Amino acid sequence: MKNAIGIDLGGTNIKGGLVNEEGRILAQMEVPTMAHEGPDAVCSRIARMVPDLRAKAQGGAMLGVGIGAPGPLNPNKGTIYMMPNLPAWENYPLKDKIEDKVRLPVVVENDANCAALAEAWHGAGQGVRTAILLTLGTGIGGGVLIDGRLVNGTHMSAGEVGHIVINFNGPKCGCGNHGCLEAFCGSAGIVNRAWEQLEKPGTVSILRDRIGTDKLALTPQLISEAAEKGDGVALSVLRETGRLLGVGLVSLANIFAPEVVILGGGVARAGDVLFAAAREEVKRHALPPANEYVKIVPAALGNNAGVIGAAALLLSH
Amino acid sequence: MKNAIGIDLGGTNIKGGLVNEEGRILAQMEVPTMAHEGPDAVCSRIARMVPDLRAKAQGGAMLGVGIGAPGPLNPNKGTIYMMPNLPAWENYPLKDKIEDKVRLPVVVENDANCAALAEAWHGAGQGVRTAILLTLGTGIGGGVLIDGRLVNGTHMSAGEVGHIVINFNGPKCGCGNHGCLEAFCGSAGIVNRAWEQLEKPGTVSILRDRIGTDKLALTPQLISEAAEKGDGVALSVLRETGRLLGVGLVSLANIFAPEVVILGGGVARAGDVLFAAAREEVKRHALPPANEYVKIVPAALGNNAGVIGAAALLLSH
Repeated sequence: MKNAIGIDLGGTNIKGGLVNEEGRILAQMEVPTMAHEGPDAVCSRIARMVPDLRAKAQGGAMLGVGIGAPGPLNPNKGTIYMMPNLPAWENYPLKDKIEDKVRLPVVVENDANCAALAEAWHGAGQGVRTAILLTLGTGIGGGVLIDGRLVNGTHMSAGEVGHIVINFNGPKCGCGNHGCLEAFCGSAGIVNRAWEQLEKPGTVSILRDRIGTDKLALTPQLISEAAEKGDGVALSVLRETGRLLGVGLVSLANIFAPEVVILGGGVARAGDVLFAAAREEVKRHALPPANEYVKIVPAALGNNAGVIGAAALLLSH
Repeated sequence: MKNAIGIDLGGTNIKGGLVNEEGRILAQMEVPTMAHEGPDAVCSRIARMVPDLRAKAQGGAMLGVGIGAPGPLNPNKGTIYMMPNLPAWENYPLKDKIEDKVRLPVVVENDANCAALAEAWHGAGQGVRTAILLTLGTGIGGGVLIDGRLVNGTHMSAGEVGHIVINFNGPKCGCGNHGCLEAFCGSAGIVNRAWEQLEKPGTVSILRDRIGTDKLALTPQLISEAAEKGDGVALSVLRETGRLLGVGLVSLANIFAPEVVILGGGVARAGDVLFAAAREEVKRHALPPANEYVKIVPAALGNNAGVIGAAALLLSH
């Protein structure tokens, strides 16, 4: 049985796991990232996890260390182009630095791509030729897999499915453009639509009782919780979010004709209301035959997708 | 030198060519399609072209016959799913029918995909890892190539880049959805924007002199000709068309990070005004680094792309 170590380098925590070739996590650990201490300190923390995880292996070959990292990076060279708000990370040679310390092959990939790879390998996209993963959170990340390979594009900057334009007259997006899928269906877009409804005089909602006049307290999670209790405002916001997400999925269905679209991330936990509205939009508006066969399903691996996908960089071929 | 026969099966004419492995057309011919006579009659016309073209080969192996056909089809089976308005073509086994008649291997592919393959093989996308072709005409077709392979998706229905949604509040599209790229930048969308301007009282334009009050006489070609003469209405319509096209290209750039986007078809002949506006939109709004490196270029092979691409199905591997 072959093994690899998967590292999910997040803004808050570094998760590490020993993963076998069946995609099972045999051991895992987590430490705070403390990215403000600079990349060399973070590399040391990653490197210290490796022997601990490796010691848990019950024999079998150790193929190396896969790292999923946020933001734009170059998987061929294993360098980070940048980390938002952290200047010391610019053009940082993550792969070389870790290889020096751990004496194992190191592979680096975008974290959303790792999650897509994990879901295609042993999650909701198993055995599928074309799969698309969207991670719905503050932003919308994603990855596209065709025949088990990530669509990487030039300079490895492809797969930014959160930044397809669904309405060029839409709200401003964090990327500078207007009307991206992320501007409508990222956390801020969802919260803004809910807030607009709450501001209308006479609106009755659990959400108003929960947050009062504090817009900053409003989150997609609160909206999901209110929807579960049958709150009308929350339900209509999630239904509209699902429909708008569906508009983006129509474009992706027409471009890729995927067998499956996998929705992960915190916002996807809103569940049935969101999924049903997205599915209806795709069924009504994607071109046949894709409108009938594209499945829209929740991610299966949850918080472990990053670690499993990072290990899959070495194990899944 | 290896050769293949490329057939471009169009709604009006069937074009055939003898093509060598350098992508050169050594001989060509053209006959009317007369699709209303039914698929068997059309197959006979295609089959009769084959020995004539084959006779022009100056030695070398004949690999077979590639056919580019419109509409949804299954390249694996070589069957046409349907031809718009022609019921007799439903689920027609084009590949088997032609193979029976010509005793050569036959390969069938979507015509827009053939054009994309041709441009990547010996046209505007040579030597490129990721290329996207859009054919701008009555509709907007297209094909996406990654590492020289067409993105086919499930049931081979991928690559419908004309049906990405750029504004869900936009005009109705022929596909039934609203706000597709094709609804804005297909012939009808362009003509409608020009007509709106011409209807405004006091508008001065060569176009009004040319067509009077006959909207049906207005075409993208007339608009391009008027723009070349400096007509203000025509120029502003083409500029807006380029910008809207650019909105769609931003989505495609963010998804695929292609090295090159190739624009073919009649509307692309509008030239610089259209291209400049599309390039500006991509430069301003696609994510870095793609916003800087994605090249937007005219197709190089013109009307021959279909024949060359159909032959490339056999020759380009």
